[in-house]
Amino acid sequence: VTNLGEFELIDELTRHLDPPLEGLGIGDDAAAWTPAPGKLAVATTDMLIEGIHFRLDWTTPRDLGWKSLAVNLSDLAAMGARPGHALISLALLPGQAQLAEELYDGVRDLAARTGTQVVGGDTVRTPGPLIINVALIGDADPDRLLRRDAAEPGDLLVLTGPVGASGAGLALLLADGPAALTRPGAAPLLAAHHRPVPQLAVGAALAELGLRCAIDVSDGVASEARHLARASGVAVEIDVDSLPLPGEAVALFGRERALEMALSGGEDYQLLFTVPAARLKEVLSAIDPLCRPSVVGRVSGRHAGGAVALTLAGAPYDAAPGYTAF
Amino acid sequence: VTNLGEFELIDELTRHLDPPLEGLGIGDDAAAWTPAPGKLAVATTDMLIEGIHFRLDWTTPRDLGWKSLAVNLSDLAAMGARPGHALISLALLPGQAQLAEELYDGVRDLAARTGTQVVGGDTVRTPGPLIINVALIGDADPDRLLRRDAAEPGDLLVLTGPVGASGAGLALLLADGPAALTRPGAAPLLAAHHRPVPQLAVGAALAELGLRCAIDVSDGVASEARHLARASGVAVEIDVDSLPLPGEAVALFGRERALEMALSGGEDYQLLFTVPAARLKEVLSAIDPLCRPSVVGRVSGRHAGGAVALTLAGAPYDAAPGYTAF
Repeated sequence: VTNLGEFELIDELTRHLDPPLEGLGIGDDAAAWTPAPGKLAVATTDMLIEGIHFRLDWTTPRDLGWKSLAVNLSDLAAMGARPGHALISLALLPGQAQLAEELYDGVRDLAARTGTQVVGGDTVRTPGPLIINVALIGDADPDRLLRRDAAEPGDLLVLTGPVGASGAGLALLLADGPAALTRPGAAPLLAAHHRPVPQLAVGAALAELGLRCAIDVSDGVASEARHLARASGVAVEIDVDSLPLPGEAVALFGRERALEMALSGGEDYQLLFTVPAARLKEVLSAIDPLCRPSVVGRVSGRHAGGAVALTLAGAPYDAAPGYTAF
Repeated sequence: VTNLGEFELIDELTRHLDPPLEGLGIGDDAAAWTPAPGKLAVATTDMLIEGIHFRLDWTTPRDLGWKSLAVNLSDLAAMGARPGHALISLALLPGQAQLAEELYDGVRDLAARTGTQVVGGDTVRTPGPLIINVALIGDADPDRLLRRDAAEPGDLLVLTGPVGASGAGLALLLADGPAALTRPGAAPLLAAHHRPVPQLAVGAALAELGLRCAIDVSDGVASEARHLARASGVAVEIDVDSLPLPGEAVALFGRERALEMALSGGEDYQLLFTVPAARLKEVLSAIDPLCRPSVVGRVSGRHAGGAVALTLAGAPYDAAPGYTAF
């Protein structure tokens, strides 16, 4: 399918989605739906740019569609919110109609698993690079919202799973390109990079448990801990030895480099959240069926402006700063 | 302000906005707010790309900010919906931090006039072109939604104001560049192109009056009439002699070319809506204080797939087809 006009392309792309449950289908000036009564609206958006956030020689369009929705779902997970309705904006180069259809297949894969409905979007042409912007609207209970500014001194810091897998996958791609897949142990790292799984069930469980503070690990753990500490006005200590590292990353890169990937690599989409020490056991038991939680640090006190200390065996640990997207 | 990291830039941009009325400010994983009870959520998104949708040598960043919100507000107007909460994604080239701040000033200008709150977004770097994506969520009464698929045989077609002004402004810019502003009569045409005014009050009034069918004129009138006819399964006749043309466009380009700009130019952001013939007088009186309505045609019958006939003094009129964005 090539050389489609905008409206024919939208028709074609719509066929790659499940039909909306209610309200207007794609094709009117805007999408409409009935919000769940008594809930907060929770909304986020993320833009992915070819050459900055992905490379088409490494990533299939279908994986790219999955990931473009996943990064937004992860934001909702970090709020304890549920999806949701998505709007997808695509800037396509000439001849990318087929790519757009495969990308929509990847969006649908994850939308169907998470109860997300794609209700609209915009499709425009560009001289390049390819751009995907997803805006996602979900909902949450008003008194059950997870925020990044609610960490309290004495809280423990918990991660929902291993970190550094996506960064390790990216490092393999940077070294070997698509041939990275032939390396023993590479598959789970590349999967973590291409098809991250948003922690929606854990986020919802944390909200249900009445916890208050979470952030998703889209940058490295060090950078996310800094955001949480700054927003909450607290000092945070992270014991780097307690960070859960993927065995494949340690095997392929060694422990020190795997640790750097966890601290600074980014795109893991685990949740980093706080738990009052007295509730730790109860919370870990409750979420244990949903993820592999690890206690990785604690909130050591108040600190205007926020502070993060990394420690290894009790001594300060020097890490490269988390990468900055702009 | 240059060489800001992403988080410093977001802080800086946030200072160019009015603070949110409730809920979370910019800076958490997602924005949150309380939807109005009993309303539909209505959402839309539009992506603007440098070189395709705008040129920085013709457009100030402040006008660009205004327009990027205006085109989305126009979609809500066409649904009879109210704004609203906006999410803004920006892909910036190195050194465009100052431009981004001016762009946010333009967003704020229109946001403040329309009750729109900017609650979040994403800011990423790009090698170019500059990209702005706005996602906008508003609300509407469930039984008062304007749709493009609700035109009925016997309805009259009405436009809320002159069309072709934006296309004429663009033609001046294509001919003369920024010097176009020195041409007598150019100012209102360039303003129509750079700072379109979304017809929110008219859209709300049409919904309140119980009308059913509207579309905004983002492409030319001919193209929008086709969308409306196709979605509604009707045949539409437009009397091109009745199209309200801006006097400045007629003076500068002549009547025939001004008419082509109205039919095919696009970006006028008037509303095209249908009225049962028996209610015409009542409806025109009701919206007369809000706009300059013109009856421009009628729905002549049912037609599977939709059809549009342009007539001039009763004879068929051949127009260039509306431009296709992709």
